[in-house]
Amino acid sequence: MRCKGQILGIFITFEGIEGCGKTTQIGMLKEYLESKNYPVLMTREPGGTGLGESIRAILLNSSSEIIAPLAEIFLYEACRAQIIEDVIKPALKNNKIVLCDRFADSTTAYQGYGKGLGLDTVKEINKLAAGAAIPDLTFIIDCEVDAGLKRAWARIHSAKTKNKEDRFEKEDIEFHKRVRDGYLKIAAAEPERIKLINGTHDIDTIHKEICKIVEKRLEAMGYRLRRKQVTSLLPQK
Amino acid sequence: MRCKGQILGIFITFEGIEGCGKTTQIGMLKEYLESKNYPVLMTREPGGTGLGESIRAILLNSSSEIIAPLAEIFLYEACRAQIIEDVIKPALKNNKIVLCDRFADSTTAYQGYGKGLGLDTVKEINKLAAGAAIPDLTFIIDCEVDAGLKRAWARIHSAKTKNKEDRFEKEDIEFHKRVRDGYLKIAAAEPERIKLINGTHDIDTIHKEICKIVEKRLEAMGYRLRRKQVTSLLPQK
Repeated sequence: MRCKGQILGIFITFEGIEGCGKTTQIGMLKEYLESKNYPVLMTREPGGTGLGESIRAILLNSSSEIIAPLAEIFLYEACRAQIIEDVIKPALKNNKIVLCDRFADSTTAYQGYGKGLGLDTVKEINKLAAGAAIPDLTFIIDCEVDAGLKRAWARIHSAKTKNKEDRFEKEDIEFHKRVRDGYLKIAAAEPERIKLINGTHDIDTIHKEICKIVEKRLEAMGYRLRRKQVTSLLPQK
Repeated sequence: MRCKGQILGIFITFEGIEGCGKTTQIGMLKEYLESKNYPVLMTREPGGTGLGESIRAILLNSSSEIIAPLAEIFLYEACRAQIIEDVIKPALKNNKIVLCDRFADSTTAYQGYGKGLGLDTVKEINKLAAGAAIPDLTFIIDCEVDAGLKRAWARIHSAKTKNKEDRFEKEDIEFHKRVRDGYLKIAAAEPERIKLINGTHDIDTIHKEICKIVEKRLEAMGYRLRRKQVTSLLPQK
């Protein structure tokens, strides 16, 4: 991401339907990049800040009233505005690789395509919230809705997270199919930024594919060179 | 407010800086209208719904992190979208007079003028959130910032609300002056919808002025006639 002419770190987002495996993959990518001594910051949406976590609790609390679709989108955008300001921008200014689990494409897929809020409205609101914070690279991990929900269901009902993430569960299969189709359309519209990953492959195969794409992008964006220049300016040990 | 050609109730909002006296006046107007047997629904922003109250708690909790200006505006808009859907629209469809303590003009005054977020951005976001829910009548109760803050300060430090509404207190005097000037500009731009009330007059004088304007507007909008027609269709006691 570039901001007012200043070269910054690199902003990578992970997207996909529930249970597609993106959270596993983002964790593996973090470990890989750190093993190469890259400075990494990993965060997630909604959440990632104190405000975001409070809002996440509201969004995921299935016992509360039904949240109006437009109110829901504004809550996600509030999280986004805060995480950009408090977490993403400062990390990028420090030349870090920022990995974010969900970002603006989630709003387009879930609220725009899934819930049928006008795509123009979603685009407009996303633009207002995210402003110049457009990811340099986005992975959409694609899988069949049935397979994804089966995995998500198993996770949701594990002892650790029981009762905490019930809201998503109440959406119907058709909704998730619209979300998946939305993601496919989003990927098709921006092939340069977005890489569509086949989520049915085994975890390690997907991981290797992602690492390869990331390395290539770091090279193309001159990230390693910039890092080297910055490091050479630091006092030698 | 009209919605898809259907004649609905009447939507009246109260605006002004902290301590201008609007909350007192909205309560007095409610009592007056109910004494005339008008069906009234009184609500407030932010809040007025379960979701809104949760968000209000986040906004007013001064011990939490600094909320980014754009995140703040999205939180207000989330409250607004929810209150429109759950409270205001159903009441207006039931031919009620809806009185709302703060609405979209607050966002323009506080975030647009006060915090200096671009007015175009605020206008755009307001439009997305409030959509067709434009008040039929708005009272901006105007007073000097010093007088308003003195009153607000006394209220905030009463035993009942102690420590609960501290966030606003931390804004500086200059901020409230920008908000007040913003309100004056908002009023000047829409003289038909917005009535600017001199808040330095005594409470009863202001109340009588407001009642007179409301009665006139109810007459002009044919509200009493509509009520009579509706009532005549109901089974006689």
